[in-house]
Amino acid sequence: MRARLMEATVELLVERGFAGTSTTSVSERAGVSRGAQLHHFPTKNDLVVAAVEHLTEVRGAELAAAAERGLPRGARRTRAVLELLADHFTSPVFTAALELWVAARTDETLREAVAPLEQRVGRQTHRMTVELLGVDESRTGVRELVQATLDLVRGLGLADTITDDARRRKRVLDRWAVTLQEALA
Amino acid sequence: MRARLMEATVELLVERGFAGTSTTSVSERAGVSRGAQLHHFPTKNDLVVAAVEHLTEVRGAELAAAAERGLPRGARRTRAVLELLADHFTSPVFTAALELWVAARTDETLREAVAPLEQRVGRQTHRMTVELLGVDESRTGVRELVQATLDLVRGLGLADTITDDARRRKRVLDRWAVTLQEALA
Repeated sequence: MRARLMEATVELLVERGFAGTSTTSVSERAGVSRGAQLHHFPTKNDLVVAAVEHLTEVRGAELAAAAERGLPRGARRTRAVLELLADHFTSPVFTAALELWVAARTDETLREAVAPLEQRVGRQTHRMTVELLGVDESRTGVRELVQATLDLVRGLGLADTITDDARRRKRVLDRWAVTLQEALA
Repeated sequence: MRARLMEATVELLVERGFAGTSTTSVSERAGVSRGAQLHHFPTKNDLVVAAVEHLTEVRGAELAAAAERGLPRGARRTRAVLELLADHFTSPVFTAALELWVAARTDETLREAVAPLEQRVGRQTHRMTVELLGVDESRTGVRELVQATLDLVRGLGLADTITDDARRRKRVLDRWAVTLQEALA
């Protein structure tokens, strides 16, 4: 039941935005009674924070699994890692998180819950990217290049919000893969 | 009076977000009568789109002027350009635009007005960045590196939305300046 509530919340955040998502619409979508929902998540903020956290974990695990199955070795690896990251930052989970971050900006209670979540997710994604790229962060500049890569794909995610940016994104990532590889070498 | 309305709108978008900004609060903040406001901007969407467009132009002109006055030549120029861009993408105008982009995602009427604005602003910023960096876009990969730089600072802008990211941002930009300079050389 918890999983159904989480998925319904993210779906509604993506379809209707933060302001358009109500706890009533979530319980309807999930097919869960109001009472049961309120028992688990007394407020809208509880619900949306838990949902984005849950789906981020699910998506992170999927990403790690995809990486384990299919990443090429050698020269094509960097580009493949960038593709995985860009997929992640243009997925519905990113969109739902974006709705949450932006709403949290002007809602102090929500911000108190979202800020630590952002930090946790940020650290996790960073660690995973370091592993996927197989780089050594003790070398000067490597940490910052990984961060820059994540800032770049975050920017690409935002650029894809209201227009389909896939073609431009592909060219930018092709070039960044070459530059990143040279800078990390 | 138009300028007062535009500034009040951006202020309120930054303080209260898109959902929290009403046309009534704008006319109160600007000290403009409801009738006069409705004459110029019949709907909330007209008002917010015009305001973000107006302030983007003002801020773009300020940026160009700052660039003309004070950019160093030689090796320090790239870093100085990145600083200007990052300032721009962490300014209140970026925050107001972010509110608008995100609201437009789930509001078709707003999206029809915001999508062309995003394209216009994007092209303008790109052109300005090419000029400031003094690079030649006819060379292979230069256009994509400029785009990657703008995607990066957009990502940095988003990372600064609910937490103060200034220290991390400085380190990322220091490294990006070195990498970009080598890649463009």
